Amino acid sequence: MKKQYAVIGLGRFGSSLAKELIELGFDVLGIDSSEQTVEKLNGILTRAVIADSTDIEALKALGIGNFDCVIVAIGNDIQSSILTSMLLKELEVKTVVAKALTELHGKVLNKMGVDRIVYPERDMGIRVAHQLASPNLLDYIEISKDYTVAELSVPKRLSGLSLKELDLRVKYGCSVIAINRKDSVTIAPMGTDILNDSDVMVIIGNNQQIIDFEREFID
Amino acid sequence: MKKQYAVIGLGRFGSSLAKELIELGFDVLGIDSSEQTVEKLNGILTRAVIADSTDIEALKALGIGNFDCVIVAIGNDIQSSILTSMLLKELEVKTVVAKALTELHGKVLNKMGVDRIVYPERDMGIRVAHQLASPNLLDYIEISKDYTVAELSVPKRLSGLSLKELDLRVKYGCSVIAINRKDSVTIAPMGTDILNDSDVMVIIGNNQQIIDFEREFID
Amino acid sequence: MKKQYAVIGLGRFGSSLAKELIELGFDVLGIDSSEQTVEKLNGILTRAVIADSTDIEALKALGIGNFDCVIVAIGNDIQSSILTSMLLKELEVKTVVAKALTELHGKVLNKMGVDRIVYPERDMGIRVAHQLASPNLLDYIEISKDYTVAELSVPKRLSGLSLKELDLRVKYGCSVIAINRKDSVTIAPMGTDILNDSDVMVIIGNNQQIIDFEREFID
Amino acid sequence: MKKQYAVIGLGRFGSSLAKELIELGFDVLGIDSSEQTVEKLNGILTRAVIADSTDIEALKALGIGNFDCVIVAIGNDIQSSILTSMLLKELEVKTVVAKALTELHGKVLNKMGVDRIVYPERDMGIRVAHQLASPNLLDYIEISKDYTVAELSVPKRLSGLSLKELDLRVKYGCSVIAINRKDSVTIAPMGTDILNDSDVMVIIGNNQQIIDFEREFID
Amino acid sequence: MKKQYAVIGLGRFGSSLAKELIELGFDVLGIDSSEQTVEKLNGILTRAVIADSTDIEALKALGIGNFDCVIVAIGNDIQSSILTSMLLKELEVKTVVAKALTELHGKVLNKMGVDRIVYPERDMGIRVAHQLASPNLLDYIEISKDYTVAELSVPKRLSGLSLKELDLRVKYGCSVIAINRKDSVTIAPMGTDILNDSDVMVIIGNNQQIIDFEREFID
Amino acid sequence: MKKQYAVIGLGRFGSSLAKELIELGFDVLGIDSSEQTVEKLNGILTRAVIADSTDIEALKALGIGNFDCVIVAIGNDIQSSILTSMLLKELEVKTVVAKALTELHGKVLNKMGVDRIVYPERDMGIRVAHQLASPNLLDYIEISKDYTVAELSVPKRLSGLSLKELDLRVKYGCSVIAINRKDSVTIAPMGTDILNDSDVMVIIGNNQQIIDFEREFID
Amino acid sequence: MKKQYAVIGLGRFGSSLAKELIELGFDVLGIDSSEQTVEKLNGILTRAVIADSTDIEALKALGIGNFDCVIVAIGNDIQSSILTSMLLKELEVKTVVAKALTELHGKVLNKMGVDRIVYPERDMGIRVAHQLASPNLLDYIEISKDYTVAELSVPKRLSGLSLKELDLRVKYGCSVIAINRKDSVTIAPMGTDILNDSDVMVIIGNNQQIIDFEREFID
Amino acid sequence: MKKQYAVIGLGRFGSSLAKELIELGFDVLGIDSSEQTVEKLNGILTRAVIADSTDIEALKALGIGNFDCVIVAIGNDIQSSILTSMLLKELEVKTVVAKALTELHGKVLNKMGVDRIVYPERDMGIRVAHQLASPNLLDYIEISKDYTVAELSVPKRLSGLSLKELDLRVKYGCSVIAINRKDSVTIAPMGTDILNDSDVMVIIGNNQQIIDFEREFID
Repeated sequence: MKKQYAVIGLGRFGSSLAKELIELGFDVLGIDSSEQTVEKLNGILTRAVIADSTDIEALKALGIGNFDCVIVAIGNDIQSSILTSMLLKELEVKTVVAKALTELHGKVLNKMGVDRIVYPERDMGIRVAHQLASPNLLDYIEISKDYTVAELSVPKRLSGLSLKELDLRVKYGCSVIAINRKDSVTIAPMGTDILNDSDVMVIIGNNQQIIDFEREFID
Repeated sequence: MKKQYAVIGLGRFGSSLAKELIELGFDVLGIDSSEQTVEKLNGILTRAVIADSTDIEALKALGIGNFDCVIVAIGNDIQSSILTSMLLKELEVKTVVAKALTELHGKVLNKMGVDRIVYPERDMGIRVAHQLASPNLLDYIEISKDYTVAELSVPKRLSGLSLKELDLRVKYGCSVIAINRKDSVTIAPMGTDILNDSDVMVIIGNNQQIIDFEREFID
Repeated sequence: MKKQYAVIGLGRFGSSLAKELIELGFDVLGIDSSEQTVEKLNGILTRAVIADSTDIEALKALGIGNFDCVIVAIGNDIQSSILTSMLLKELEVKTVVAKALTELHGKVLNKMGVDRIVYPERDMGIRVAHQLASPNLLDYIEISKDYTVAELSVPKRLSGLSLKELDLRVKYGCSVIAINRKDSVTIAPMGTDILNDSDVMVIIGNNQQIIDFEREFID
Repeated sequence: MKKQYAVIGLGRFGSSLAKELIELGFDVLGIDSSEQTVEKLNGILTRAVIADSTDIEALKALGIGNFDCVIVAIGNDIQSSILTSMLLKELEVKTVVAKALTELHGKVLNKMGVDRIVYPERDMGIRVAHQLASPNLLDYIEISKDYTVAELSVPKRLSGLSLKELDLRVKYGCSVIAINRKDSVTIAPMGTDILNDSDVMVIIGNNQQIIDFEREFID
Repeated sequence: MKKQYAVIGLGRFGSSLAKELIELGFDVLGIDSSEQTVEKLNGILTRAVIADSTDIEALKALGIGNFDCVIVAIGNDIQSSILTSMLLKELEVKTVVAKALTELHGKVLNKMGVDRIVYPERDMGIRVAHQLASPNLLDYIEISKDYTVAELSVPKRLSGLSLKELDLRVKYGCSVIAINRKDSVTIAPMGTDILNDSDVMVIIGNNQQIIDFEREFID
Repeated sequence: MKKQYAVIGLGRFGSSLAKELIELGFDVLGIDSSEQTVEKLNGILTRAVIADSTDIEALKALGIGNFDCVIVAIGNDIQSSILTSMLLKELEVKTVVAKALTELHGKVLNKMGVDRIVYPERDMGIRVAHQLASPNLLDYIEISKDYTVAELSVPKRLSGLSLKELDLRVKYGCSVIAINRKDSVTIAPMGTDILNDSDVMVIIGNNQQIIDFEREFID
Repeated sequence: MKKQYAVIGLGRFGSSLAKELIELGFDVLGIDSSEQTVEKLNGILTRAVIADSTDIEALKALGIGNFDCVIVAIGNDIQSSILTSMLLKELEVKTVVAKALTELHGKVLNKMGVDRIVYPERDMGIRVAHQLASPNLLDYIEISKDYTVAELSVPKRLSGLSLKELDLRVKYGCSVIAINRKDSVTIAPMGTDILNDSDVMVIIGNNQQIIDFEREFID
Repeated sequence: MKKQYAVIGLGRFGSSLAKELIELGFDVLGIDSSEQTVEKLNGILTRAVIADSTDIEALKALGIGNFDCVIVAIGNDIQSSILTSMLLKELEVKTVVAKALTELHGKVLNKMGVDRIVYPERDMGIRVAHQLASPNLLDYIEISKDYTVAELSVPKRLSGLSLKELDLRVKYGCSVIAINRKDSVTIAPMGTDILNDSDVMVIIGNNQQIIDFEREFID
């Protein structure tokens, strides 16, 4: 059987999350207190209902206890977020994920037994800061404090060089994991592969070394 | 000389972004219309000032035209976001980045000549949806429509297996790029490296194959 | 086929404009978000509807793309004015005219691709200022920086003089184009035509010369 | 001595009017109840003060009775507009001009003895309607019910024709009063003068005939 | 035929007035913009309706032009009071009476052609002041600047005295017009009539003399 | 020593009352919670202060207990009116007078021990109703249920008649007490006194008879 | 017949009171002005209705005069509380109980003739203060200024002692009235009864002596 | 050293609690966000300060971690109540007591680790219900589900009877623990003690038996 998700709070974050879960092939129940908001998602989500999520009877009537995962994506109302999370754990929802606005809010949610707490604006702020700091950086995963996988657009100055000529591993201690060209992705490329300035490359390495590399060849 | 950033609108997204830029070693001027908000960031940012960013005289007085990059992170006021972006381009700021609330808002910003438009809540909604869909997925980079780099916690059922035994490449077409152990990161691990359920592994491969792998070994 | 106009925003300016277009024999669709406002124009305009002009679906449902000219006469809400103008250009309306509240607003509308931007209060302020400055001035057209066509009530002190006696062309470099008497209009009057203080005359000339003339003979 | 004006209410209409009077060389006192509004016009008008214009003592303190002309340009507050006009007449201001929002408002102002009542939004709505109805029409003066002076951009199809060839007077009963070329204005042009599509011409004639002409040669 | 009254504005003053006119045997139409207010007077007035009295169509629909007398008793909204009065005179109501809040408001109503202007709170303030100043004074009519008819409760110290003994006319220049005893009223009492401290007497005289009398015998 | 009054609540009723008491030669302390209101009466009343009359300490600080008479003229706030009256009686003010908005309010004030309760709007409504019902009636005192003293302008149809000819006492059972002429007042007029239509007469009589007389001779 | 109660105002205090009366076996009518509040108690109280308790007609329609006891538990609106209490006494309700917010409010209610006035927050504040001051104190009754009945949890240090060993009466002048053990209550225990630290004992004695005892043996 | 208390939220409940703790001889710090509220308790509490209790820095600056017991008596703001409680536990306050508005609120506070949760309005509602149900009941302690100590005013019908004649223990299974007379309290009264209807007696017994007794002898 397909996993059942419910998303409470259908603002920008909640509706984006709910729609992506639908894209990924799951059933999603959307819940919001605003009629207008719910109407907009009717026909897009599996089901969208108007309900007060701080009212235990309303949650029971929706059979919320049977869902695999409920996400509390309530926008700005910290009180509703806390009370809703409390009720979901009381109703023995297996996994409760909640959006926190501040550190303190997050700590309270943690005490409620919320399984996973997300800080969308804070995390996105950090991610965008990194991208702005390194103009060629498209995306990245911090593997540990020291190592990062980075997706970089190839700087113009490196266009036409082979990986061998570039010799990243020796000069910067980084390895090129993949090259994304317009029409194909080369995984584990060889020394003879030539970089082109419309390519995107994925490298892995020590943070400082990636930064050094980046700063030297930035466009 | 260090790059000069200005962040207009110091809500959750804007202040997180501004603080991360400081962490990354840049100078950051923070601007907000609320005295309370500005006070909180005094001493944290290089400079934090109260100003009306839709007043061209106020922007000129701050010398905004000399900044390398200005980020319009205004929270909910679409009108201010648009007018501010308009003025920044008039003042010939090199790079203007702006947060959009809706697609339509984004299109207007684009007409203003904004260089980069971000949708923090929407993007974070999508990212969290993927993480919820794959409980072992910690982070990911979509390299292309077909290929993804995924950071996964090692499922318990694979604990104690060597990469050779796992034989991911043959069974799922994926490669293990790195293993993050508590105390060290192994890049380009060998077949004899043993996985442990407290480890995190970074793999690269075709989306569908990663999903197949994940679903088979999920905890 | 008759030209099709739509007017969005039916406040004092918008409703006056819409009603005058009806007077001039065109079809006019009126759109406003207020039920009360729309009701007042029902039966006066070809059609009057309540709609949210920042909702693309609403605009499509009205077939707005087929109109020859759409006027955005939204009163005080700059955000709605901008978003509506953006949508109209997206829907490929041939001619979009929009009312701007401030210079900055006007510049944004210009970036949206608005074909013609009007500033009713500003322009009317200028026009009334001229009329107050010259009490006999009823209306005027600025042909160029230097030349003006002016409609003036004939000052009492000139009553009974013939154009020849007045000899405007020699004394002030102006020509009398027309004389509007109670019961008839004389175009290109002759030197023997007599002015009467209930007449109105239309003159053309250099700005300064008209002012000199006016100040000398003002009532 | 220079004429003394005072403008009460410094919104878009009032401030435009006040600034134009300054341009025309008069002294202007600006009065508004909002500190912010007054500050913006400080240094631009002869004097700008914060005052409650419905308080007779405040008006007396400003010596309002000595002004030649006071314009009540109060934006949306009908009550203040009426009470202010009443007080100005009590204080024996020679000429009181007031902006009316509605017909009924205008009638009340008339009973107050206001000397001239203007309806900026209504009049501008009518003027813009005419311009939209005739795309080549730049401006116009209605001399009487039947005759109009119209400023028209020369239609492309007439470019290169002499006035003689055009023969407006015979075909449409209109006369060309002036031709405004990029670098000069020709008043009372002759039959050999050639029209160019970057020219603007001023014509006088019967309304219907001008419309007929316009419709035939419209671009 | 009975006189037809309409009262616009059914607050405390308006409803008291309307109900008293009903008591006095007249037909009264009550008009107010509040549903709740109108409901309370349903069945008490001849007719009570909800209407916007600044809308000429609404007034016409009520046939307001045919009423003998319309009272504008609108509570606190000066604008509505003025506009309503203006419309009533336009509709040629024979007699328009209006309540004014301030002197300035009263002057504007006067310009509207209002036939009678009343200041209930001001007048009642004056009346109560007089009653407080003279504790025995129950009511009074100021006949002229100098003469007053006063209704006084008989001071205890005068109880048991005959009018002759009291000799008001000689001592204070006042005449006793009537004595109101519990069970009867004696008009034009004689010298032998005895006053009792439960009686009320009506006297006429010079203001100062009445005050002197009052102060001497006050309880 | 002069009597000491305090008036709490300086709205239209309260300020009119306070100013009239000053006119009558008393000392008056005015109290209101609004700074603006108090300022307007500064210099007019003996003293005007800003105070919260529901705060016993504030009242004590003003020495309210020593005043001869305190009038609670609070406009619309029933709660403040009740609490203030309660405190005044606690502080043993000799005479407390209070304005009531409704019958129920009046009953509560009565329970508080308020010595005199006035209903300005209701009473003024009744008074104006009588004046409207009888156009010639200027003022009146109801002496008992049956008898009234009425001040009437002399109807035109009676102009020129002597009191003897009029013979009011026989025909209507009324007596003429006084005639107010432009320049003098005649008390207890004789049968030979002639009425003039610019005169005002004061009559006493039975209510019904006065009405009969009035209706017969109404203008 | 069962006693009939009505509770007006169904906030936290009122609804708790109403529900407890139902528990105790009485009929209870609940009255509140909020539909939402009334709905929540439907089916719990004998009857729950929406009504304006300051409207005498509404109270009459509910037959409020026939109730044995009406409790005015209105939350924060002092005016409604006073007016409602006034009406209840007018309607001759036998017993009126009212909640007061402040001392002054309580005094006014007393003047209204309210039979019993309660101060829930104040009294509960005092009760909780006592419990916090003496951590072992569970509840208490102040019999007089000097004597108290106190319910105390047995301090650990006394666990295992017999009452004889404890000898409270001699050492502290207190008597043990009852011991509440997990499974039974011993009334008037004997000297051989052993205390256990999971027991609760009820003692009576002089306030100071109870405090001395408590402080010596506190956990 | 004296125990140190802090009370956060100085509304009716909080201020009553704080003042009683002062009465009981403790040091009390009062904290509220309202300046007006804090001022009223200045000089009454040991110290009273304005602070935002959801700001950890503000709490630290007050040294809140050193207090023995902190009571969160915040009136209506559930969010502040939760966040404040969270911070107090983080700052390792020994004992945190908090007021809950609803059951759900109480549950959340419990998760925060709050040591004691009180429901003043609910508890007071229950207590008053019992007192209303038994008019002679002044106060009571529920020792267990079955047994109660009750303080009763002596019913008139029992006045003059000795305890022996009353024979409560045999007839109702209750014992009289104490009799409170006007001038003295008799603990453990004897059979010859006579009851008087101005006395108050304290009895202990089975709930049902007390009710039976009460109902039989109720006044």
